[in-house]
Amino acid sequence: MSKLEDIVSLCKRRGFVFPGSDVYGGFAGTWDFGPLGVILKKKIMDEWWKFFVEDREDIYGIDAAIIMNPKTWEASGHTATFADPLVECKECKSRFRADKIADGINESVTTEEFLATHTKCPVCGKENWGPIRKFNMMFSTHVGAVLPDDDKEVAEKNIAYLRPETAQGIFTNYKNVYDTIYPDLPFGLAQQGKAFRNEISPRDFILRDRECSQMEIEYFVHPDTWEDNFETMRKLQHEFLENTIGLPKDKIHEYDVPASDRAHYSKRTTDFMYDYPNGEEELMGLAYRTDFDLSNIQRESGKSMEYRDKKTNETFIPHVIEPSIGVERLFLAVLSNAYTEDEVNNEKRVVLKLPENLAPYKFCVSPLLKNKPELVEKAKSVYQQLRTKYSNVTWDDSGNIGKRYRKQDEIGTPKCVVIDYDTLNDDTVTVRDRDTTKQTRVKIADL
Amino acid sequence: MSKLEDIVSLCKRRGFVFPGSDVYGGFAGTWDFGPLGVILKKKIMDEWWKFFVEDREDIYGIDAAIIMNPKTWEASGHTATFADPLVECKECKSRFRADKIADGINESVTTEEFLATHTKCPVCGKENWGPIRKFNMMFSTHVGAVLPDDDKEVAEKNIAYLRPETAQGIFTNYKNVYDTIYPDLPFGLAQQGKAFRNEISPRDFILRDRECSQMEIEYFVHPDTWEDNFETMRKLQHEFLENTIGLPKDKIHEYDVPASDRAHYSKRTTDFMYDYPNGEEELMGLAYRTDFDLSNIQRESGKSMEYRDKKTNETFIPHVIEPSIGVERLFLAVLSNAYTEDEVNNEKRVVLKLPENLAPYKFCVSPLLKNKPELVEKAKSVYQQLRTKYSNVTWDDSGNIGKRYRKQDEIGTPKCVVIDYDTLNDDTVTVRDRDTTKQTRVKIADL
Repeated sequence: MSKLEDIVSLCKRRGFVFPGSDVYGGFAGTWDFGPLGVILKKKIMDEWWKFFVEDREDIYGIDAAIIMNPKTWEASGHTATFADPLVECKECKSRFRADKIADGINESVTTEEFLATHTKCPVCGKENWGPIRKFNMMFSTHVGAVLPDDDKEVAEKNIAYLRPETAQGIFTNYKNVYDTIYPDLPFGLAQQGKAFRNEISPRDFILRDRECSQMEIEYFVHPDTWEDNFETMRKLQHEFLENTIGLPKDKIHEYDVPASDRAHYSKRTTDFMYDYPNGEEELMGLAYRTDFDLSNIQRESGKSMEYRDKKTNETFIPHVIEPSIGVERLFLAVLSNAYTEDEVNNEKRVVLKLPENLAPYKFCVSPLLKNKPELVEKAKSVYQQLRTKYSNVTWDDSGNIGKRYRKQDEIGTPKCVVIDYDTLNDDTVTVRDRDTTKQTRVKIADL
Repeated sequence: MSKLEDIVSLCKRRGFVFPGSDVYGGFAGTWDFGPLGVILKKKIMDEWWKFFVEDREDIYGIDAAIIMNPKTWEASGHTATFADPLVECKECKSRFRADKIADGINESVTTEEFLATHTKCPVCGKENWGPIRKFNMMFSTHVGAVLPDDDKEVAEKNIAYLRPETAQGIFTNYKNVYDTIYPDLPFGLAQQGKAFRNEISPRDFILRDRECSQMEIEYFVHPDTWEDNFETMRKLQHEFLENTIGLPKDKIHEYDVPASDRAHYSKRTTDFMYDYPNGEEELMGLAYRTDFDLSNIQRESGKSMEYRDKKTNETFIPHVIEPSIGVERLFLAVLSNAYTEDEVNNEKRVVLKLPENLAPYKFCVSPLLKNKPELVEKAKSVYQQLRTKYSNVTWDDSGNIGKRYRKQDEIGTPKCVVIDYDTLNDDTVTVRDRDTTKQTRVKIADL
């Protein structure tokens, strides 16, 4: 098994991540977070919120609806251009993303270029292709009373989309926030929430799923200062990823995206790549979006997006620096950095070396022997005592003590607290460290 | 203006809630949370999570995908029955929810019954109706490579839905959680997340929106114990709503829903109604869903949903008690309970008497005069000092002190801390109380 497969297996075995709709054989590109995954995901999201919103005075939160007025996607260009090249095998009717099944072509491949690659159908092996067609990745739906037998015109008038990025929920709220709290530039708006992309071929566990959680900031700046603010944001991302989340600096690689590969709205983009188990993959992006979005909204809505400097009275449409990160991508980076196999007493051990601030549980409390009522009773009292101090304390009296250590190692619990007969005499417990497996004797009061 | 209109106006004016896609003229049934609304919403959701999940040992979290395998909605009955009666005016083509425009009929109204009410079209005033048709409230979309000109058959094969309730995301994960952590009964699974309902006529601000956030628990119990567990859950809901969220007991009314009005899956349902400004409306529901959902999943998936008692070896499908609450409904209950108009110095004052644990900001710090650098500097230092202790401290040096008090009253900040010339001499500040408007002199160190 590859390391990624090991992680997928651990995630299911211990309740971090299950395949979506697993009981019905799954549903491609969707994943469900189990009891431990929810805790880890929430900790990651809360750390981000604290770092970028609560602990700062210049960034405010926003929480916009997922289904937005379709004009949003006209203005942003998504209706016209948010598309992958789709190709259909005329023999077996299978459909593929052209640039993923042929070498040496990119997303803007033409039919002629694709045919010239002489690709065979990955399903039936034949080579009989239809034309390249643009497949828009936005999920569409109908809002309002549209019936299945309504004609196409009625249905089309009521089309709306699931947002493919949270960013537009921020831009469309810029004016209301500006009119409400009159912040000075630079200021940012931050949002956490779901985004949806109808990937033709979802893959790589939670890296390329159809439904993901994004954490995005639009940081509004004076156009003359974008380079300084870009640099400030760049450093902040490193501080967050390395100091708060604990990812190693040497696994994060920055790439300045060349103009030809940048999104149409960006004048500079830096991709932050991470060394995932299967290779380098995008972890987050930092983009200078100019005034592209606010100008589009101003044009489409007819409402002014201008900012007026309180001191100089200068008016202009702010420019934007956007750090954007996928929660699932960060979640997997955290897990794959923590996932370690070593040997303890000549046996293979799997251990999640999660930082203390992210580990689902801080302590696991258990009695050395589960069939000794006096030990269980004492252990329960220590457990309850710790729970009044910390919210994340777990109890385990299953199997023997060795099995419990293995289990707590696999879910990343930093300390196991074990109650034995000595505890009854001197109120000390054994504290066993996850990473070193060392055991020390500690007074209960000093825990 | 009605009190509800006053609240809607305050929500927009102060950045709690904006109409969704407001810059494009809105989008019916969607709402966006602004900077203060995000803080309040997050506090409400975090209090719920702490109360029902973190502080308990028997309830675990789950976070399932919004787009699920469509078999989910076949099994749950939503594909067949989650529908409202739709009627179309043949004259002007307007469509309505029949039971909302005619008196004395309910959701299962027939065409004959509706015609007998002799209702006139609310838009054109004529009386020329088409038949009553069932309009399914689930938003549908296509997952995978479906193109606009695909024939109906291809499109239909790929239909999926946005979940109309979070509950099914819990039931479908029951087996994976059970196989992962083997909890003893009773145990619960809790989820917070978005749910979508294509309301024909969204209305009443955030009470009947098309996109809402739900907080649901499925509490799995032995069938013989459902009544006791129902009672336990009922009391817990009151404890949460009254002690943690601070809603007054006398505004919450319980109704046992008669069998004829209950959802098809429930053997007992208690609606918790709240005295909203426009009258009594549902705040939350508590339902005994029997083994309806797990049995359906067992039948549809062919996988056993049975629980085995570790001591007695008895096997059975657990029964379920479900407390379900809408975040927006709770949010509006909190706001409307807090919203108060009184008179201060013979002037009308609007004040949000939010409980301290929910108020977006705990303290507002400001200098008495904003053009005196020595006061501003001292105030800034007090502000920074408080921010190291509390995450939710705000700064205000706009307008005069009276205006600042009005603003902080409107956003519910319990204490305003004002720095004046005495502060420079004796390190005391004025602390002004939101509810009483009383001012007291306090040492900075004692804040």
